[in-house]
Amino acid sequence: MTATPGSRTRLSPDARREQLLDLGLKLLSTRSLEELSIDLLAEEAGISRGLLYHYFGNKQDFHRAVVRRAADDVIRRTQPDESLEATERLAQGLTAYVDYVEQNYAVYTMLVRGAASGNELLREIYVDARSALTGRLFEGLDEYGLSDGPAVRLLIDGWAAMVEETVLTWAGAPSIPKDELLELLGAALPAILDPLVRR
Amino acid sequence: MTATPGSRTRLSPDARREQLLDLGLKLLSTRSLEELSIDLLAEEAGISRGLLYHYFGNKQDFHRAVVRRAADDVIRRTQPDESLEATERLAQGLTAYVDYVEQNYAVYTMLVRGAASGNELLREIYVDARSALTGRLFEGLDEYGLSDGPAVRLLIDGWAAMVEETVLTWAGAPSIPKDELLELLGAALPAILDPLVRR
Repeated sequence: MTATPGSRTRLSPDARREQLLDLGLKLLSTRSLEELSIDLLAEEAGISRGLLYHYFGNKQDFHRAVVRRAADDVIRRTQPDESLEATERLAQGLTAYVDYVEQNYAVYTMLVRGAASGNELLREIYVDARSALTGRLFEGLDEYGLSDGPAVRLLIDGWAAMVEETVLTWAGAPSIPKDELLELLGAALPAILDPLVRR
Repeated sequence: MTATPGSRTRLSPDARREQLLDLGLKLLSTRSLEELSIDLLAEEAGISRGLLYHYFGNKQDFHRAVVRRAADDVIRRTQPDESLEATERLAQGLTAYVDYVEQNYAVYTMLVRGAASGNELLREIYVDARSALTGRLFEGLDEYGLSDGPAVRLLIDGWAAMVEETVLTWAGAPSIPKDELLELLGAALPAILDPLVRR
């Protein structure tokens, strides 16, 4: 089973690297990071181990690249339209996030659980990704009548933890309609921040 | 360095076991679970390894007993006064929880991070403990004008994740006064659940 045979010779090194990372992510949906070896990738991609080492250095660098690719996917796919107002940006970002977790449940669970375990490689990438996601919320604070500060930061991080927990649980066993989930999580953020709104 | 020398012969086996678990927890505040060996406990307690194996079977059983003791501590210390109404019970439970995390930061972090890592031993104990804590909230639903259901369960678990994240971050670097933290987290639960209140 080789990945897109025939296209190999036409791709630039960067495009080829991206294609290999995509394949790495796909393989991760049915196995753990520990089980994802350079050998396996070489076999599935139909190229030599030597070439893979050329692209990724060593196994740890390869893992780091695959996990960062997963994190970049979440960030990119949840990027809201900056022309919208804060509430709509939030709704759009949440919808994209839930879609992503639904479609990439295994990989995303690996990222979250692995990061929490104290695996430094995963933790660093995960923290960066979460900062990128929650960082967007700070841009909209003014529209909520809020200004940045330690209490706002604690609550926004707390809300992000709530969203992560709730969406992972829901994606594993959808117990309510997706629309209701999105509505409840979207309403929760301003509700939690309400005591801090300037009066 | 022996623990409470002199008292050994007066203790019942159960009391002695409790005392050893207390010592285990104390040792865990400055090292990881992996570093907590039967040898170390024997040395610190001033008793033989053979006697410790008599109490705890093997190292894994010993770890399980110590971690369960930590979980039981959280549950017991956050037990609210049942004669209070829901809002007061919540405030009391939250205060006790924050106090516990402040005073047992290393051990509690180990429990939460270890459980999230997929360590099955820790995960099972942690899930039990969190169910015990959030389970109390379901008893007060009626007082909030709510009835049990999948949406309420998702949101209460989400709020619990928010509290855990926020309190762990805060205990590691207190950026706002404790009273403000307690007020914000206490207000967040009814605010999050508000869309589900029977109207």
